[in-house]
Amino acid sequence: MAAKLQGIFTPTLVAYDERGAINEAELRRFISWLIERGVHGLYPNGSTGEFTRLTAAERRRIVEIVCDEARGRVPVLAGAAEANVRETLDACEAYARMGAAAVAIVSPIYYRLSPDSVYAYFAEIARESPINVTLYNIPMFASPIDLATIRRLAEFPRIVGIKDSSGDLAFMMRMIAAVRPSRPDFSFLTGWEAVLAPMLLIGCDGGTNASSNVVPEVTRKIFELTRAGELAEAMQWQYRILELFDLMLNPFEFPDGFRAAAEMRGFRFGRGRQPMTSAQQADRAALQSSLQCLLSDFGFIAPPSAGCAPRGQGAEKDKIAQLVYEVMHALEKRGAL
Amino acid sequence: MAAKLQGIFTPTLVAYDERGAINEAELRRFISWLIERGVHGLYPNGSTGEFTRLTAAERRRIVEIVCDEARGRVPVLAGAAEANVRETLDACEAYARMGAAAVAIVSPIYYRLSPDSVYAYFAEIARESPINVTLYNIPMFASPIDLATIRRLAEFPRIVGIKDSSGDLAFMMRMIAAVRPSRPDFSFLTGWEAVLAPMLLIGCDGGTNASSNVVPEVTRKIFELTRAGELAEAMQWQYRILELFDLMLNPFEFPDGFRAAAEMRGFRFGRGRQPMTSAQQADRAALQSSLQCLLSDFGFIAPPSAGCAPRGQGAEKDKIAQLVYEVMHALEKRGAL
Amino acid sequence: MAAKLQGIFTPTLVAYDERGAINEAELRRFISWLIERGVHGLYPNGSTGEFTRLTAAERRRIVEIVCDEARGRVPVLAGAAEANVRETLDACEAYARMGAAAVAIVSPIYYRLSPDSVYAYFAEIARESPINVTLYNIPMFASPIDLATIRRLAEFPRIVGIKDSSGDLAFMMRMIAAVRPSRPDFSFLTGWEAVLAPMLLIGCDGGTNASSNVVPEVTRKIFELTRAGELAEAMQWQYRILELFDLMLNPFEFPDGFRAAAEMRGFRFGRGRQPMTSAQQADRAALQSSLQCLLSDFGFIAPPSAGCAPRGQGAEKDKIAQLVYEVMHALEKRGAL
Amino acid sequence: MAAKLQGIFTPTLVAYDERGAINEAELRRFISWLIERGVHGLYPNGSTGEFTRLTAAERRRIVEIVCDEARGRVPVLAGAAEANVRETLDACEAYARMGAAAVAIVSPIYYRLSPDSVYAYFAEIARESPINVTLYNIPMFASPIDLATIRRLAEFPRIVGIKDSSGDLAFMMRMIAAVRPSRPDFSFLTGWEAVLAPMLLIGCDGGTNASSNVVPEVTRKIFELTRAGELAEAMQWQYRILELFDLMLNPFEFPDGFRAAAEMRGFRFGRGRQPMTSAQQADRAALQSSLQCLLSDFGFIAPPSAGCAPRGQGAEKDKIAQLVYEVMHALEKRGAL
Repeated sequence: MAAKLQGIFTPTLVAYDERGAINEAELRRFISWLIERGVHGLYPNGSTGEFTRLTAAERRRIVEIVCDEARGRVPVLAGAAEANVRETLDACEAYARMGAAAVAIVSPIYYRLSPDSVYAYFAEIARESPINVTLYNIPMFASPIDLATIRRLAEFPRIVGIKDSSGDLAFMMRMIAAVRPSRPDFSFLTGWEAVLAPMLLIGCDGGTNASSNVVPEVTRKIFELTRAGELAEAMQWQYRILELFDLMLNPFEFPDGFRAAAEMRGFRFGRGRQPMTSAQQADRAALQSSLQCLLSDFGFIAPPSAGCAPRGQGAEKDKIAQLVYEVMHALEKRGAL
Repeated sequence: MAAKLQGIFTPTLVAYDERGAINEAELRRFISWLIERGVHGLYPNGSTGEFTRLTAAERRRIVEIVCDEARGRVPVLAGAAEANVRETLDACEAYARMGAAAVAIVSPIYYRLSPDSVYAYFAEIARESPINVTLYNIPMFASPIDLATIRRLAEFPRIVGIKDSSGDLAFMMRMIAAVRPSRPDFSFLTGWEAVLAPMLLIGCDGGTNASSNVVPEVTRKIFELTRAGELAEAMQWQYRILELFDLMLNPFEFPDGFRAAAEMRGFRFGRGRQPMTSAQQADRAALQSSLQCLLSDFGFIAPPSAGCAPRGQGAEKDKIAQLVYEVMHALEKRGAL
Repeated sequence: MAAKLQGIFTPTLVAYDERGAINEAELRRFISWLIERGVHGLYPNGSTGEFTRLTAAERRRIVEIVCDEARGRVPVLAGAAEANVRETLDACEAYARMGAAAVAIVSPIYYRLSPDSVYAYFAEIARESPINVTLYNIPMFASPIDLATIRRLAEFPRIVGIKDSSGDLAFMMRMIAAVRPSRPDFSFLTGWEAVLAPMLLIGCDGGTNASSNVVPEVTRKIFELTRAGELAEAMQWQYRILELFDLMLNPFEFPDGFRAAAEMRGFRFGRGRQPMTSAQQADRAALQSSLQCLLSDFGFIAPPSAGCAPRGQGAEKDKIAQLVYEVMHALEKRGAL
Repeated sequence: MAAKLQGIFTPTLVAYDERGAINEAELRRFISWLIERGVHGLYPNGSTGEFTRLTAAERRRIVEIVCDEARGRVPVLAGAAEANVRETLDACEAYARMGAAAVAIVSPIYYRLSPDSVYAYFAEIARESPINVTLYNIPMFASPIDLATIRRLAEFPRIVGIKDSSGDLAFMMRMIAAVRPSRPDFSFLTGWEAVLAPMLLIGCDGGTNASSNVVPEVTRKIFELTRAGELAEAMQWQYRILELFDLMLNPFEFPDGFRAAAEMRGFRFGRGRQPMTSAQQADRAALQSSLQCLLSDFGFIAPPSAGCAPRGQGAEKDKIAQLVYEVMHALEKRGAL
């Protein structure tokens, strides 16, 4: 029987080369670095892995690389959502052969389906899949999986967990209360590290957290501290990761802020697939210095050569840089520049 | 200097007599019962207290009764929102005279105001109020108070806290991170007991929780257990109060489920001010038995004379009762009955 | 039997004096001006009339003034929503005595009620009201009235119409298709003049439109042109009123843009009840010149003494003025000014 | 220079065979039938064409079949959105070679992008595309394209139109007012036939309407009647198509109701790609009889052999059938059947 999925799984970023193709060498180097830094598992083809911006062939190739590079050191949870049930099942078979521990399948995207249709979709997959399946609930981007549907789907032995990216703590508790008594092996993972420590405290088994691409040491530490009952210290780290998460998430187009920060740890992810205006590129450059200061506070990298102001003043400085950008941006938009 | 607001404040339900007027005797009996059961404070004229369904005169009368009955045993946080700034300031003055510890003022309702307008509204109140002010953020019903606005408003000494009913843990952490360093006296209260224990763990000072009208012993216990670091036990209670909260909140029109449950503790709140269809009244009767079973599990009241099935089966039984109701209701709606 | 409500009803703005009280003389002058300019009816205590920012006594006083000043020249549809059913029925009685043609009652505010509760609320009012009742559906601010509920409520003879401010044309058509066959006397009024002409073309009986406080001649013209089948001309006016409506609605806090524009027609409405920051006040001043140019294009008022650039260039000029403001505002917000 | 896109373009349904593959013969027969029934153009790979449920190869194949079968009788607007800009541009090239008149490209899906990113995405495509591009705005499913972005994008000669499925009439007017003066060749198409006639009256050039798969005669008639100024008759048809549209849209998972209805016109579309529960299948069967009655009212097909009750009673009968289904469904869901 398969081990229960637990710990922090990294929804791995994709590295592109200068022609925009997958950069296999850099991806492998990154994967091994993550494993060495202590992530409990890898999750290619998630939202952080821009699965919708890849071709079907590229998605296959990425899982192949990740499984091969992991070499069994950590389990691989492979994102297997394709255009329809048949294509998704084909991917499930391929990923089973590649050695993935399980697949994660996002609820149907684009159309907003009713609970019955979400159920029918996953039920058909659960009946046919040769590999264990984790549900992926991300209501801001895909058809929501509601509580009653999760309860019904947990009756399929093939379905072994859910990754929830709503960040709704009460909803996670409702799922755990509804499913765990009859399915102690069912895994509950949060995709919202803004509240990682509280999620672990109310009983989550782990998380699939974009921030673990950037600070795998910290997400692991929060996991271990909460498990050990070291609550005060866990909360300190939680507040720090929230600050970092907000800075990587909000001013950037997802997942570009995570890409920018992970590059500071020594990787080259290349130009992303979503084009940027020149204003956005200028913005990104300005934000990178804020990111570098924040990451240097963690001690993982050096501060910018120009240095970082003390915390309070630094915030002020960032605001002025931001202000200058906004003014320039406003003028440019109006064609005044 | 005023003591920091902390602990569980009960957003007190209103008792009506058979003519629909405020039932002062029953309200006083209820207030004293809450204090004896250990609530840390009282919060009349909140959403649970149906402030928008009362006249301005009734709102004054209720605070007068609550302050008088509290007799200084616990602090009173008086809901003071009126039609406009001038009326609200008049209420602030009245509640200061009555001995309230502070007032709580909901963000402007009906129109959805911009952050600047929300700021301007509270700033004018903060400059003039003779009594400390707590902001009340309830974005599902009123103009949201965003993070930047809270930071700006925390510069007014008169503003001493915020009650937030969004239930968003990350938002609460952002507020605490932004305001606490410069305002250690500022109080953060959550209005969403679905996640009370996690909120306390990330640093909230307490809550204003409708459920404390029904099980004041439990909300206090969660507060004390989290303060004492008794996490495992706190979480057990948290799961139980979530189940109760959901049952009181969802199938009823707010706050009628809380009224129905609090009546089982021995009070008569009378008919609410929002009319019900006959189908809704039948529904309420059916739900009361589920509520009674759940409350009897806590040991606070006796189970229904017909008894409650064991937990698992009970849930099944509830579902059948619910199903029968739904069928009847559907038939009735179509005029087939 | 009462005449069917039709035509353009003005949701009348409130005039305040320098102390913030109702300015009766100016309100009377404004009412008579509207009637002389051709509005078909008056609708005090609507959202434009800031009913939630008035005290109960002020709402009574306003209807009294409006009915008295109208002297039967046009019908008065009086906004009668109060804190609860009993208070609302008291207002209905008062407004019946004052000579209102009917009342308009907004769906319950603050709490978001279920369709059954919305039905129960209006049903109780419909059974008791001594005066005809118009439903007021404004889902962005109040509990929505859905199609099934409207159909059920149209069975009460006392309910004689609906004012819908959703601006959803298909929803209006569904209402008309569901209700008109059995209730040819039932009146459908739109509160969204952005699409006034199309609404009239699909069968609406008229509108209650904030813009008619500012350009009563134009809203009447659109009504008459669509009735006469003068479609091309009606559409030209529709495009012009949309531009004006957007400028009065979006950059201002509602209904302040309508107040600013109506003042240019020669009235003094005084300072509104919602406070403004100094940045907002500066903003308002800048926008007023754009408004004046737009209104002068209609020929109702003179252009600003500095003149208005030709249309295209004017737009450019407005943008630069707006840009300057935004930069100043951004600097001010950051404390850099 | 290319002719302006105008008239009713059918977002063509896909026909599947019994193995779930594209049924080319039936698709060809359907395409020719649509052209014979008077549609002005064809729009494969739209939302109605389930583009997200097809593989990239299938999307190519469908455009190839449609272009080939159309044989220049009507223009083809080919849905060309793929996983990223490069893949999308490859599709644009392919569709240009196949003879499409233009492509339609939906705003980026899944992630909700900022206006700047939406702009950057379309700008890169506009610079490189060898074929004219129509923007596709469907904010309920994809990143919204806001007014400022449309204005900026209309500066690219390659961008020749927008299909908007928001159904927001005022928004359509704002777009027309902003873009038409400088781009009289720019085409505005509505995807929301619930308000087709009003959209044409305010100046739309046509529509891409799922209902034209079912009743191409009616959508064309509405187009022609509004162009001819036959407003009263146009509105009668508009009310009828709204009733049909609502029945095909709401109780079904999109686009299955349109598939069910189009099959009654004599085609076999096969089992859709989104699985259904047995309850949903029972539901679909029940709804088909209502659909058949409604379509027979139009005179296009025969009524069910059991006959249709007169309109009013028919509605009642439908409701009872619907009620029976709902009860069975509720029992089944609870495992009581």
